[in-house]
Amino acid sequence: MWTIAATWCMALEGARKGAEILKEGGNGADALEALITDVENDPCFTSVGYGGLPDAEGHLRLDAGYMDGTKMVTGSVMAAEGFASPFRIARSLSAYKTNTVLCAEGAEKYAREHGFEEKEMRTESSQQRWKDSLEQDTQSAYRGHDTVGAIALDEEGNIYAGTSTSGLFLKRPFRVGDSPLIGSGFYADSEAGAAVATGLGEDLMKGCISYETVRLMKEGLSPQEACDRAVSELAVRLIRAGSEPGDLSVVAVSKDGHTGASSNISEFSFVFADCDHEPEVYLVRKEGHCSIYEKAPEEWIRDYMMRHNKR
Amino acid sequence: MWTIAATWCMALEGARKGAEILKEGGNGADALEALITDVENDPCFTSVGYGGLPDAEGHLRLDAGYMDGTKMVTGSVMAAEGFASPFRIARSLSAYKTNTVLCAEGAEKYAREHGFEEKEMRTESSQQRWKDSLEQDTQSAYRGHDTVGAIALDEEGNIYAGTSTSGLFLKRPFRVGDSPLIGSGFYADSEAGAAVATGLGEDLMKGCISYETVRLMKEGLSPQEACDRAVSELAVRLIRAGSEPGDLSVVAVSKDGHTGASSNISEFSFVFADCDHEPEVYLVRKEGHCSIYEKAPEEWIRDYMMRHNKR
Repeated sequence: MWTIAATWCMALEGARKGAEILKEGGNGADALEALITDVENDPCFTSVGYGGLPDAEGHLRLDAGYMDGTKMVTGSVMAAEGFASPFRIARSLSAYKTNTVLCAEGAEKYAREHGFEEKEMRTESSQQRWKDSLEQDTQSAYRGHDTVGAIALDEEGNIYAGTSTSGLFLKRPFRVGDSPLIGSGFYADSEAGAAVATGLGEDLMKGCISYETVRLMKEGLSPQEACDRAVSELAVRLIRAGSEPGDLSVVAVSKDGHTGASSNISEFSFVFADCDHEPEVYLVRKEGHCSIYEKAPEEWIRDYMMRHNKR
Repeated sequence: MWTIAATWCMALEGARKGAEILKEGGNGADALEALITDVENDPCFTSVGYGGLPDAEGHLRLDAGYMDGTKMVTGSVMAAEGFASPFRIARSLSAYKTNTVLCAEGAEKYAREHGFEEKEMRTESSQQRWKDSLEQDTQSAYRGHDTVGAIALDEEGNIYAGTSTSGLFLKRPFRVGDSPLIGSGFYADSEAGAAVATGLGEDLMKGCISYETVRLMKEGLSPQEACDRAVSELAVRLIRAGSEPGDLSVVAVSKDGHTGASSNISEFSFVFADCDHEPEVYLVRKEGHCSIYEKAPEEWIRDYMMRHNKR
């Protein structure tokens, strides 16, 4: 039994690569890395890694996180510039007992010392998008924030979670979102399951939404029930506090390989695959208090890929 | 009804200042700031603010966090150098909807633009401590990590939590601990209570320990029960995962003004005051599965202050 799942349609190709690894009995952390680095490397997906969304100064500073739910070890990178895979750096930090979360030039220095691939992550089109924003009103700011968050459960029963993102489009330089924060952007515990989040980081972290989703699975809720409960309780709490919640989306996999997803936006897409299901894109929609998900229509996927200039 | 509580004996003087504010019906966030800035400003306390513990390169990069449990807004500063009060910067960030967590030069730029007091936070003795460490073995590394974490509940029923720290002594530059992470170092929800943590950040964040403590109070546990449960469940989970947990300590205040504290170390001290109790230092010790706390003997406090060259 194995499962791989991730946020957004953009993770489809990576999920196929990860599924290949898991199908052959490979390690869940390697499957996770295959998925996330596929998205990091693809300039068509403009909110993660290469060709990602620049900050207000036109820099591309990236966040990533990793958790091994069996060893209960984690690593995170915040606001790191000039490296091909912030996720790989985060994963490598999980080998240490201390200094597992590094930001800015500290993360970059660590990465250089440990031989991680250096790369100019800005592309002509990411720079064009930034320049265009300077001439327009700021309506486009903070719109883009599609983090790739992924979960892999391997045949050994080990579950892993990870994230990678360029953060909010036009963010204040060195802003940190939920993605590299344990419990907010990602959480994994092989005794229960794992969860990853995407949306407005500043709101997602107010509920430690990934930790809460995993905790609810530990209490006995299905991943679907856990995702629905975590999203709706956070949204309701923020409304009671007088604020309008930003986008909140979460994907979860239980230790027995089931998948769930929930969101307070329409058209939240995610991918998953397991021994019974080929990697496919699903769309989440609300029915009353619960979410259900269905395979995304071919046409929807084609439109998504075209919007991302992906053929 | 009001309550103020904070980690470690070093918060005693600040708790007195905060209690004065609360006693007169003042705002909980202001009381919190009075407490935390008192510790930040005092060079005798070598793990927070002015005269804090340098990193491996001899720099003093500071972390702080803030949460308003009524408005459910937060702010955090990570690895910021050269400002008198990282806590004040974190508090001010909570006014925004986005970009509420800033690290490194992004946090410094924000602080400069908003007129926060600039200050060389290294003292002669903090630099001496760093130089000595270069000539000794690394036994002293990672020993110091006494974050000031504080909670204030005001007469209006609003609860606030905040932290400030220089992080692990001789940490890798730009390492981020639990203190500025929502849910790990601090959490507040005026519908339940608030909690703050101190100890080995890399382990504390694996359990989102402050969030979990508040959540347990929401479930109906007393602050003492919630602290005990959160500390012991995290420690046990880490042991099951094959690791030796680092120091884990937590202090909590419930929305009805009761205080609790728990720790997996001996001699964990904290302070609290409320309408019935003058600000005093308490020591936590285990009795079976539970912790109890008692007023620290005068002699113990005198020793603590002398160890910190504080008269």
